Amino acid sequence: MAFQLLNEQIVIFRKENGGVVALEDRCVHRQAPLSRGEVVGDLLQCAYHGLCFDGSGNCVRVPSQKVIPPNARIRHYPAIERHGLIFIWMGLTDEPDIEALYIFPWDEDENWHETHIHLHAHFSYLLLVDNLMDLSHLAYMHKSTIGIDAVAEDAKQKSERAGERVRVSRWMVEIDQAPTHIELSGYTGKVDRWQYIEFCPPGYFWVQTGSAMAGKGGANAKGKDLLIKRNSVHMVVPETETTTNYYYTTVHKRGTLSKEREQIFKDRMAQTFREDVELLEHLSRQAKPESPKIDLAADAGALQARSILDGLIAAQTNQEFPDQPAPNLT
Amino acid sequence: MAFQLLNEQIVIFRKENGGVVALEDRCVHRQAPLSRGEVVGDLLQCAYHGLCFDGSGNCVRVPSQKVIPPNARIRHYPAIERHGLIFIWMGLTDEPDIEALYIFPWDEDENWHETHIHLHAHFSYLLLVDNLMDLSHLAYMHKSTIGIDAVAEDAKQKSERAGERVRVSRWMVEIDQAPTHIELSGYTGKVDRWQYIEFCPPGYFWVQTGSAMAGKGGANAKGKDLLIKRNSVHMVVPETETTTNYYYTTVHKRGTLSKEREQIFKDRMAQTFREDVELLEHLSRQAKPESPKIDLAADAGALQARSILDGLIAAQTNQEFPDQPAPNLT
Amino acid sequence: MAFQLLNEQIVIFRKENGGVVALEDRCVHRQAPLSRGEVVGDLLQCAYHGLCFDGSGNCVRVPSQKVIPPNARIRHYPAIERHGLIFIWMGLTDEPDIEALYIFPWDEDENWHETHIHLHAHFSYLLLVDNLMDLSHLAYMHKSTIGIDAVAEDAKQKSERAGERVRVSRWMVEIDQAPTHIELSGYTGKVDRWQYIEFCPPGYFWVQTGSAMAGKGGANAKGKDLLIKRNSVHMVVPETETTTNYYYTTVHKRGTLSKEREQIFKDRMAQTFREDVELLEHLSRQAKPESPKIDLAADAGALQARSILDGLIAAQTNQEFPDQPAPNLT
Repeated sequence: MAFQLLNEQIVIFRKENGGVVALEDRCVHRQAPLSRGEVVGDLLQCAYHGLCFDGSGNCVRVPSQKVIPPNARIRHYPAIERHGLIFIWMGLTDEPDIEALYIFPWDEDENWHETHIHLHAHFSYLLLVDNLMDLSHLAYMHKSTIGIDAVAEDAKQKSERAGERVRVSRWMVEIDQAPTHIELSGYTGKVDRWQYIEFCPPGYFWVQTGSAMAGKGGANAKGKDLLIKRNSVHMVVPETETTTNYYYTTVHKRGTLSKEREQIFKDRMAQTFREDVELLEHLSRQAKPESPKIDLAADAGALQARSILDGLIAAQTNQEFPDQPAPNLT
Repeated sequence: MAFQLLNEQIVIFRKENGGVVALEDRCVHRQAPLSRGEVVGDLLQCAYHGLCFDGSGNCVRVPSQKVIPPNARIRHYPAIERHGLIFIWMGLTDEPDIEALYIFPWDEDENWHETHIHLHAHFSYLLLVDNLMDLSHLAYMHKSTIGIDAVAEDAKQKSERAGERVRVSRWMVEIDQAPTHIELSGYTGKVDRWQYIEFCPPGYFWVQTGSAMAGKGGANAKGKDLLIKRNSVHMVVPETETTTNYYYTTVHKRGTLSKEREQIFKDRMAQTFREDVELLEHLSRQAKPESPKIDLAADAGALQARSILDGLIAAQTNQEFPDQPAPNLT
Repeated sequence: MAFQLLNEQIVIFRKENGGVVALEDRCVHRQAPLSRGEVVGDLLQCAYHGLCFDGSGNCVRVPSQKVIPPNARIRHYPAIERHGLIFIWMGLTDEPDIEALYIFPWDEDENWHETHIHLHAHFSYLLLVDNLMDLSHLAYMHKSTIGIDAVAEDAKQKSERAGERVRVSRWMVEIDQAPTHIELSGYTGKVDRWQYIEFCPPGYFWVQTGSAMAGKGGANAKGKDLLIKRNSVHMVVPETETTTNYYYTTVHKRGTLSKEREQIFKDRMAQTFREDVELLEHLSRQAKPESPKIDLAADAGALQARSILDGLIAAQTNQEFPDQPAPNLT
């Protein structure tokens, strides 16, 4: 498989033991894309002249000659696989803190079922930072799924910064349910609804959303009073300066949801994200950097997140994630 | 509806009283395209975070907060609707001479039926200036509709400048009819034919074309001797430096032409303009600015028109149309 | 017919005597593409305003006026037709050594049947220089037609420079036949196989490939011992800096091959070249000029060819082909 991350062409393949290897997708000889080649045992063989590379990026075979030229190697990226996702270390150092490569706001030991959504987008990842840090947009962009007017008009919103992270909390008391939530819960009465979004640089967003029957304790509601509680991570990965891969993973404990309801949830969320991507692509095409822009109160979280990113980029330390405990969202 | 004029993104919508509003198609908050939003009464609501703008471009509602930020406004363009067309003032001043926004070479009081044609073209509007100011090209490009060899070979052509306008007059005596004119008039004999083209900067071209049975007085022929007499306006509107919207409007007095004949006329003219656009797009793709070019006698009108445009652009006065009476073409 | 060579737009047409004329595809008046016009006798008439050009590029008629403007001419390119191909002289001089315009490694007097293949490619012609000068790539890229591992692993390869030409010779002794060669010869035993490639700047590659039953004298084998012997020319013609026309012509003496077998050969070679073009387009899209590249022993011929081209370009003498006798490959 080939893809592009941070302007780099990358090829990934599996070794015989199932381990994942990530290499530069460019043969050291004539720059042919290795992703067009073949996996031979634990080696990746170039489709052009047959050079073979091992899992460390070293060329170990040149079919037309016996001597391997010195310096015949390509860049190798440390990679791990977790929760059905592959994480690739693009940092300058060769030995990353591998545990920092991925961060999920749920207990590793639980028996989770993951649901994944992936979209490709023609705009800078920064537009998704703005998008995710101000969920008032649900009211207007996602009316057919998870938005109703009250999400913009009746929400209390708080933005907190802790170190290199930013958390936006939103509370809506005694409001109507949105269409998708009625579809999933079957409940049409008033609810208390909450949205927590935590920005973890460079591009993770931990999100917990939920609703409970109105007046039953909100996020602390139990049993039938608790209608929906969903933990998820949005992962915003720059492909180039102007294109982005948008990954989303959410979990539930195995056995707690029917396949049918999870599929409905996935379909509605995919539609919701497509609405975001489509509008932001349109916005991006005709944006004018020199045009005046105003900020609203609801932008506090996005502005803090952007400021953190600016600082990390300025300090050239955006290769390392901040070391912080995951909040207890589960 | 959204479109682009002079590199600007513009959205137009109708108020409840039917009046047309033209605004910058870019929300002052995050630059979302307002054309993706909804018209709510006399307001246009942004599809992203719900900001509402009135017909003057002022933001009058921010759903997530009570205070409207100062400076929350977008550019407003004066607009009027006439003869089935909407005219938008892109000038620097806010108060245009609204009557100067559109100019038609026919009496406003008559009971006209308008026929409109619109094409989008991938080339600079200047190529259409050349095209319309030298109609000898009909002989070669439009042989299947309104062109025959004589339009190039047997025409007397005169070019006159009056102030900021240029008029080209072309006369062909005792020539054959072109295919479309035979189709429309049923007459296959010799005719006297005329073409008047008046360039009105920045991008209007008033055109009167006609034919009469040969020797019956030309444009002064009456009754059955007069075969065809058609007033029209070609409007050449730059979208960007390299793309152009080409609008054409022609009129006839209600009741004087059958729907069928007017449809045939429209179809043939649309084909004719498509031939122009297709060739000029091809020309534009492979034009070499540094290649030598020669001018012919027939280019006198186009050269004057280009010179007027150069002058207007140089003086940065191209936001205001020249104040001149319409010639009596009807 | 219109096409682009070395960034120039060219139109070719036939005169009444069948002779080929090549002109700049741009009218001297308004740069309209002459290829959209019509051939009228020995003249080419512009589709826009009807100007007529003769076979030397001189404007000889302007329909709308009697006087032909001085300097009304466009560039004319000497052209000849041979072996079903048209060769166009793009050099700075007007009088080329016409015989140097094309060079084929076979006797002009024989009764040849030519087979032609043409592909258009989105990459610099230099990538095809590398490709053709190192045929070890057959082993990996063309496994389903003319490649087997032994073409890379068991070949003796020699690279010789003679003046401005470079010849690569490759010999494989007692190897298996490739799929297409089994299909064409019906022979499944071991063979001796050879490949001669001679680079003739700026973009010709004479190629002779063949195979004989193992141990029967190789290229000197006679009768049934000789399985395949094929002379061909690859012609690599830059269209722009980043696009290339790839022409291939091969011959056999009339009567020596059935139409069916020649069609099979053509189909397999076209597939082979498409594999080259597709991979090289992919390579070109994601190549990084600044990335390290290593050379292999097998690149000796390609490096010499590139060095010759660099020298010719540096000396601005690439308009004239070197004057050398064709080698006796037949």
